[in-house]
Amino acid sequence: MTVATAQQARRGTAATLDRLIRGTAGRIEAALRRWLPTEAAYPETIHRAMRYSLFAGGKRLRPLLAVEACRMLGGRVADALPAACALECIHTYSLIHDDLPAMDDDDFRRGKPSNHKAFGEAMAILAGDGLLTYAFELVAAKTPSPAVVPALVREIGVAAGTRGMVGGQVADLEAENGRRDAKHLEYIHLHKTAALIACATRCGAIAAGASSADLARAPAYGRNLGLAFQVVDDILDVVGTTEQLGKTAGKDADSKKLTYPSVYGIDRSREVATRLVGRARAAIRPFGARARVLDALASYVLERSH
Amino acid sequence: MTVATAQQARRGTAATLDRLIRGTAGRIEAALRRWLPTEAAYPETIHRAMRYSLFAGGKRLRPLLAVEACRMLGGRVADALPAACALECIHTYSLIHDDLPAMDDDDFRRGKPSNHKAFGEAMAILAGDGLLTYAFELVAAKTPSPAVVPALVREIGVAAGTRGMVGGQVADLEAENGRRDAKHLEYIHLHKTAALIACATRCGAIAAGASSADLARAPAYGRNLGLAFQVVDDILDVVGTTEQLGKTAGKDADSKKLTYPSVYGIDRSREVATRLVGRARAAIRPFGARARVLDALASYVLERSH
Repeated sequence: MTVATAQQARRGTAATLDRLIRGTAGRIEAALRRWLPTEAAYPETIHRAMRYSLFAGGKRLRPLLAVEACRMLGGRVADALPAACALECIHTYSLIHDDLPAMDDDDFRRGKPSNHKAFGEAMAILAGDGLLTYAFELVAAKTPSPAVVPALVREIGVAAGTRGMVGGQVADLEAENGRRDAKHLEYIHLHKTAALIACATRCGAIAAGASSADLARAPAYGRNLGLAFQVVDDILDVVGTTEQLGKTAGKDADSKKLTYPSVYGIDRSREVATRLVGRARAAIRPFGARARVLDALASYVLERSH
Repeated sequence: MTVATAQQARRGTAATLDRLIRGTAGRIEAALRRWLPTEAAYPETIHRAMRYSLFAGGKRLRPLLAVEACRMLGGRVADALPAACALECIHTYSLIHDDLPAMDDDDFRRGKPSNHKAFGEAMAILAGDGLLTYAFELVAAKTPSPAVVPALVREIGVAAGTRGMVGGQVADLEAENGRRDAKHLEYIHLHKTAALIACATRCGAIAAGASSADLARAPAYGRNLGLAFQVVDDILDVVGTTEQLGKTAGKDADSKKLTYPSVYGIDRSREVATRLVGRARAAIRPFGARARVLDALASYVLERSH
């Protein structure tokens, strides 16, 4: 499917879908504000630091995918909301730790000073630790059905840990230090960003109490979309401006990161992203009209790169 | 109870108790080695870094308390083993992050170069993140009874997060920067170390499927013992040598940390520790002979300070 037809398909029901997505996003936002410790909770500084990064204007892609996957498979928004918010906490903690001087050393994130610039390095480390810890507590304390908690915690643990996101960051780090083989590039792309995005759709399915057949289908959507998201992110680092990105553009090239554009060039990378999004959409086609929100979210990921 | 009588009471059944504790410690050690990703698992560096600190000779106090509290309340070792190992992972991650240059900046831990000295700052941050994440996965994936997983995850999340251990570290940090009121000292002592130690006994009780009356009794033991442990730790930093401690002695005073000895002096601090351990032992007296291992563990905490 070309980008043009993807855009046409989306425009057809764009208004309805946008309304649906905005509605879900609103519920996610409200839940995050309600569930995260307030800035008045002792010790205040760390809760301020956590909320500073959590409410810095993130697109909430991971929670949207979790909630919409849950709805597609017959669950309610409330079933997936705690896991959805947990994934946003984990995504946010990973950005805070990633920006640290010892890691990517980035002074800006989403157009604001990064967490360690605003609160100091020690507090940024602890704010990340706090968000990661709170994510799991949230799933355990707020998920309506206790029976799905073990599967959710396990799923999130695998996707966020050393065999998932953290593993991807390690591989990324080692690539900068010279480990640049093909196994490494593939590993980075599958783990650094894709793991948590794929996890979001699986968590949605688990929260919905999905059948094993449906549970098997959700990952194909999430895995391909997650990979596409990482490829698009790499492209944007090359073609985007610092203003558009809200973070320093061109950092990947400067720091010799191993990325899709650095290996395949921009055009070929866009083709790869388009193909991956096509595969993601194909995976949810069996769900017909119920898949239209996830379908729109997939198109949205691709449109960022054009 | 004086120290002398505590020691006499312990000597009476010392051989049996030591054998019991060594047996439990052996099972904890074996479980940690089995469950943690091996050094051959990709990406190898982070798994090496995690195991470097996890197997650096820790006393395994938190897992011992979890397993022995579980046994005292009628559970099996296996019931509490995943949560016990999770607590050791979390304790280890907190030491790794605590030693970072942006935090306490300590080059030695347990007589070896600290994690960031051995693996670099970036890897140490990620190794901590990896251990914290893995802790929750472990509880969810390995606990024999899925029904207790939500309560365990929640309990550990609260104790390790910003209203527990991380909150204590924040308060500690702010005390160094001048926030030194009484509320602050109490908060630090209740949260930095005591929260996770008290959590260990509660997790043991939850894993055993304890009655609500027993669940209410376990925290009194854990809370008092946890506080005593923190007071003893503060004392040891003043009276211990760097060789005995395996980390730099006298760091608290050098860095103007807010500690018990700095406020009350050594003698008064020893009295406080003795009284707290007495209260901990009193809390488990109703369990009679079944409490003898936890009783011995409480004596052990106190003996460190004399």
